[in-house]
Amino acid sequence: MTYCVGMILDEGLVMLADSRTNAGVDHLATFRKLRVWSEPGERVIALASSGNLAITQAVLDLVGDGIAMQENADPETMLTVPTMRDAAKLVGKGLRMIEHQDGEALRQQGMEFSANFLLGGQMKDGKMRLFHIYAAGNYIEATDETPFFQIGETKYGKPVLDRIATHAISLEQGVKLALISMDSTLRSNISVGLPLDVLTVKRDAYKIALQHTITENDAYFKEIQKRWGRALRGAFDRMPNMMPKEVKKT
Amino acid sequence: MTYCVGMILDEGLVMLADSRTNAGVDHLATFRKLRVWSEPGERVIALASSGNLAITQAVLDLVGDGIAMQENADPETMLTVPTMRDAAKLVGKGLRMIEHQDGEALRQQGMEFSANFLLGGQMKDGKMRLFHIYAAGNYIEATDETPFFQIGETKYGKPVLDRIATHAISLEQGVKLALISMDSTLRSNISVGLPLDVLTVKRDAYKIALQHTITENDAYFKEIQKRWGRALRGAFDRMPNMMPKEVKKT
Repeated sequence: MTYCVGMILDEGLVMLADSRTNAGVDHLATFRKLRVWSEPGERVIALASSGNLAITQAVLDLVGDGIAMQENADPETMLTVPTMRDAAKLVGKGLRMIEHQDGEALRQQGMEFSANFLLGGQMKDGKMRLFHIYAAGNYIEATDETPFFQIGETKYGKPVLDRIATHAISLEQGVKLALISMDSTLRSNISVGLPLDVLTVKRDAYKIALQHTITENDAYFKEIQKRWGRALRGAFDRMPNMMPKEVKKT
Repeated sequence: MTYCVGMILDEGLVMLADSRTNAGVDHLATFRKLRVWSEPGERVIALASSGNLAITQAVLDLVGDGIAMQENADPETMLTVPTMRDAAKLVGKGLRMIEHQDGEALRQQGMEFSANFLLGGQMKDGKMRLFHIYAAGNYIEATDETPFFQIGETKYGKPVLDRIATHAISLEQGVKLALISMDSTLRSNISVGLPLDVLTVKRDAYKIALQHTITENDAYFKEIQKRWGRALRGAFDRMPNMMPKEVKKT
């Protein structure tokens, strides 16, 4: 499995992805699921992927190598598309090409065509945007009310996002929140695993603010894991128990 | 959807169930999902259900009315089975009878035969036990290492259980933990809903310790919801942000 989360905040973009891929318990491997295209001062585009690795890798190859978006047009890549919306369309087009190529064979093997992408970033003179692109190649965009998207094993890490994520938290708080959400997922699902790739981009800076790989020995993540667990247990202990007098027998 | 959680602790049993049933957005209804059979001083058996309501209601009718566990044997009910394991087998047998009766027709409608039960309780001279019974009619039992089971929409409420649930917490703490886990689920999935039914049984007491229905106006649950949300936000704010100096660029 995979867990990736993206947030679009007033201050900028946060993307976090795990790197565990599994195809059965005896085949656990590590593949990077966060790809970044950057031209400092001009554009930063980050793409996180979940689902069938053969599909997502094929799509990543296509959007890196170039896809002609119209007949007889020049191929476009992540470094040439003029807007973030065009970048989302490029990924969508890539998905449809791979579905056309491999979808039927997958179905014959009883396998679903499963792939999801989070696409975030900003280009000079354009707005910062965050999209969730579905296997069908269509997509939705994050809003002020829902400033985060998740793909992969999303449910374990959602409650803490639902409670805390707003567009007004800082980039650093966004990183902290994404890591807490990831920690909840890691604890509840063994097939999501380290290392983690984290990326931040400040709004209107058009360059990477932070790009960091978190391994087993990362001091900050270990601190977050330890303190969050301790804080939850402390909060739990301080909450009152149900008193018999409060209970109306039914 | 449904969310039910059961815990078997050193002190006894905790069961919690929501009561929302939905079949599409325009058909939301409330059905009790926690059924209790009790003969004070002799036995308490609690059964929580998730899945297709037509299936789970049919199984509940069967185990209340009686099922002959062998050919020519007298029918057994939840009030006559001699052990908790036999109670689990009774539910399993009921599931297989309903599958035999309705399974094919459901499949023809493109519907899965979906039903899960949590069965907990104790009979005089027997051990307190907690089972998770699957749609196939087979089951697993909770252990000291994993003292809780969940059915229905389980993932949102699992991280807090994973962090806090051990067999050593008290019954009152078990109720508190189950309600926090339920609150996380309510917030993340609109189709799980109040009222909630909560039950506790003290070990070797063979009677109900607490049976309570939590509605929108329940003072304790409102307090838990408010304080837990506030405690999480406070804990989040107190945790350190990632410092640039801690980051090794990759």
